[in-house]
Amino acid sequence: MSKGAAYLDGAYMPLAEAKIPVTHWAYRRSDVTYDVVGVWEGNFFRLDDHLKRFRASMTRLRMTPRETDDEIRAILNRVVALAGLTHAYVAMDCLRAAPPPGAPRHPAFAPSYLMIYAVPWVWVAPEDMQARGMHLMIPKVQRIPPESFDPRVKNFHWGDLTEGQFEALDAGADFAILLDAAGNVTEGAGFNVFMVKDGTVVSPDRGALEGITRASVLELCAEAGIPVEIRPIPADEFRAADEIFTCTTAGGIMPASRIDGRIMGNDRPGPVSARLRARFWERRAAGWHATPVRYTVT
Amino acid sequence: MSKGAAYLDGAYMPLAEAKIPVTHWAYRRSDVTYDVVGVWEGNFFRLDDHLKRFRASMTRLRMTPRETDDEIRAILNRVVALAGLTHAYVAMDCLRAAPPPGAPRHPAFAPSYLMIYAVPWVWVAPEDMQARGMHLMIPKVQRIPPESFDPRVKNFHWGDLTEGQFEALDAGADFAILLDAAGNVTEGAGFNVFMVKDGTVVSPDRGALEGITRASVLELCAEAGIPVEIRPIPADEFRAADEIFTCTTAGGIMPASRIDGRIMGNDRPGPVSARLRARFWERRAAGWHATPVRYTVT
Repeated sequence: MSKGAAYLDGAYMPLAEAKIPVTHWAYRRSDVTYDVVGVWEGNFFRLDDHLKRFRASMTRLRMTPRETDDEIRAILNRVVALAGLTHAYVAMDCLRAAPPPGAPRHPAFAPSYLMIYAVPWVWVAPEDMQARGMHLMIPKVQRIPPESFDPRVKNFHWGDLTEGQFEALDAGADFAILLDAAGNVTEGAGFNVFMVKDGTVVSPDRGALEGITRASVLELCAEAGIPVEIRPIPADEFRAADEIFTCTTAGGIMPASRIDGRIMGNDRPGPVSARLRARFWERRAAGWHATPVRYTVT
Repeated sequence: MSKGAAYLDGAYMPLAEAKIPVTHWAYRRSDVTYDVVGVWEGNFFRLDDHLKRFRASMTRLRMTPRETDDEIRAILNRVVALAGLTHAYVAMDCLRAAPPPGAPRHPAFAPSYLMIYAVPWVWVAPEDMQARGMHLMIPKVQRIPPESFDPRVKNFHWGDLTEGQFEALDAGADFAILLDAAGNVTEGAGFNVFMVKDGTVVSPDRGALEGITRASVLELCAEAGIPVEIRPIPADEFRAADEIFTCTTAGGIMPASRIDGRIMGNDRPGPVSARLRARFWERRAAGWHATPVRYTVT
């Protein structure tokens, strides 16, 4: 199972065999929530935080799979162990099935179940892109607003982010950073965003996932005495930033070097971004927020 | 295959066996478009219109499955014939897979494929509910705006509609009708909406799917000399309507009798709604926009 190991509603299998019915509302209505935790050098990062957020997302969507948090913790461990991975991307999904025949066609009548898998570590931005800095752009498409779907519930409503990625491709950029209807910065396809201006680190206050790596960045800033502001970031202020960086479970801290064609600094990751990124991986190597994977499956 | 027949990327099978990998972006990023055509008394309804819309949706999402429109038409026919259904709900999905190993993790590098299935006819609103009239309500959650996802591309971004259905359940109503950010009526979970005021039929001008049954309603109004307005409908005007009705492929014209607890008329479908509904099914029985299903599969 070295290419990936999965747990699907009670059974373990190679990831390639994990398939879901096309009639389930998890697919047919994107009625699903998920979370992703990373494993680096044999350790989960902030496992409890991910479990807590995943449970909060399920509760918000009124999903009650049969597994307890302790059972989910054990399953996460087991799929990593089955795949034999020291560096892994570990996804946990809670899917709404469909109402049984004869029941009202309403989500309240549909059971929910878990699908959890581990695959070899995935970089959202490849390592060479991280070294030169991501090339970002602001697309026309706007992020789905919190009034339509609460972005704190991690979800697969990625149509706007996908459209943004096509706009980025057409513009010769790597990734799109979407604005909200008010013209303020939100997030990108699977990552939070920060800017640095006059030594202060700034991140949006709404319209984006409350990322766990984002929380780690804020911890690192606090430890280093770097001032932080959590507030709206208008697009023009973002385009004029000294530095921009992004962060995600599957990538850590990923610096940018261009925004809408403008070169920031010397077309390489800026000093604050680079310092935070180095510090992030130093701390990880030293066991920061780490939970060791048990590789002996009993 | 009487419970459902499916075509999945080249192969035919019972619907229960049609499953998709959990790693495909059609599920994992809701990167998918679809359409649904109905079969009633052995005839597809407006088959060409559905095929045209489906192709436009795929093109908009830059999806190029291998099947031509003629091939899709043949597959739609075949799944209905395999299931042996005279009254069927026939769905066609175009799914984005995932980029192959080594390719950039961008949707442009992921192939797309078709999944098509037929099941026995489904009523969005059960027949007894249509007879008494649907009980509608306006939830707090807002419809995902066109600036985030073009609602003319039929899609599975239903998180807002699902949330609305839970708000409806909590309020003791059958279905939610979502507003946009400006407070105007958009649509419900899988259907368009109309109101009748002083003899005029009114439907929203934006923020909703350009439904094919909706187009049929407009045709019927034109034939009957009923005046029609396509324009924004503020929530308060909607709540004060003489009549409200909804429409969808899987239900035709479905009248409402209550909105946000207010009883319209005599708590039964209103006269204009009832007349249009009767006329709709009369025309269907007479072969309106009909394409016969070929049940002899060669």
